[in-house]
Amino acid sequence: MKTYKKKDFPVSEIRKFLEPGPVVLVSSAHRRRTNIMTMNWHTPMEFTPSLVGCIISNANHSFELIRRSRECVINLPTVDLAETVVRIGNTSGRDLDKFAAFKLTPVPATTVRAPLIAECCANFECRLVDSKLVNTYNFFIFEVTKAHVAPTPRYPKTIHYRGDGTFMISGTNTSRYRPLFQPDKL
Amino acid sequence: MKTYKKKDFPVSEIRKFLEPGPVVLVSSAHRRRTNIMTMNWHTPMEFTPSLVGCIISNANHSFELIRRSRECVINLPTVDLAETVVRIGNTSGRDLDKFAAFKLTPVPATTVRAPLIAECCANFECRLVDSKLVNTYNFFIFEVTKAHVAPTPRYPKTIHYRGDGTFMISGTNTSRYRPLFQPDKL
Repeated sequence: MKTYKKKDFPVSEIRKFLEPGPVVLVSSAHRRRTNIMTMNWHTPMEFTPSLVGCIISNANHSFELIRRSRECVINLPTVDLAETVVRIGNTSGRDLDKFAAFKLTPVPATTVRAPLIAECCANFECRLVDSKLVNTYNFFIFEVTKAHVAPTPRYPKTIHYRGDGTFMISGTNTSRYRPLFQPDKL
Repeated sequence: MKTYKKKDFPVSEIRKFLEPGPVVLVSSAHRRRTNIMTMNWHTPMEFTPSLVGCIISNANHSFELIRRSRECVINLPTVDLAETVVRIGNTSGRDLDKFAAFKLTPVPATTVRAPLIAECCANFECRLVDSKLVNTYNFFIFEVTKAHVAPTPRYPKTIHYRGDGTFMISGTNTSRYRPLFQPDKL
């Protein structure tokens, strides 16, 4: 599988990749265990600090790894990884070393111990900054502490889940409405 | 502009429309005022009850209308409404009656006083059920109490914001990976 050469990217601008709503892969590490999960329920929450909120079900093996380590990496897979993304979401880290099973390459991160996934075109290192809603809703609020992004493709072709086994694949990108924006609303 | 004939839709299945991450229009009402805002930062949080979390900045006129009435409607616009969506996001309800200004048709809702937008292909009536994170993050947790969805198009062509005036337009839909899912993971 293809790996990407990435560059540092401003953490305040990661909406470019997450705001359109793609399926992401969340990698985590605690003590000597690592894991990867497929995750769809996330939203940007703030630019600076760069906050992302997401639901990680307590039924997932990753839940405890992330709650205890208070860290993870959000990785952005493109459509060519769709089958792997589905397989990752339909197996459990309790039974499987997912990096090995799915031939994904862990790369050391800079600010967290959870590994980056080399085969994803963007990686966002995250620290858990608010766990107030974890018990009630499984809702985690992360601060993105470092972003790594491949300069190409400029707009990666991502997959977006609709439930019931159906994905929407991202389509064309357009800036034709840009002149209608007020500068502070971009 | 086109309006849609809609049917009741199960509130536990609205992920079909919201999980892919589209830009939505949020309509609200408080006392005699109504408003519409453009909103991108949202995520499903639970199937039953059907919960949606979203960021509504306190800089928006809608913030107070929604915080006080504890209700809103999340409306799903398709790409043919993109220009209107951008114009709504770049004006304020303080200065403008947006229904009148943008020739949108308010339709009475069933469970809330905020109006549905007839020109949107889906409308989700929402009640504010948790405001614990409103002061800290402008984060609202709504329960969807009623969903109205046009039977066609089956998969509406939606717009997804990337920041900097750029939108991704939803592309093709595929169920080719469905056989890889475990039944409880669909």
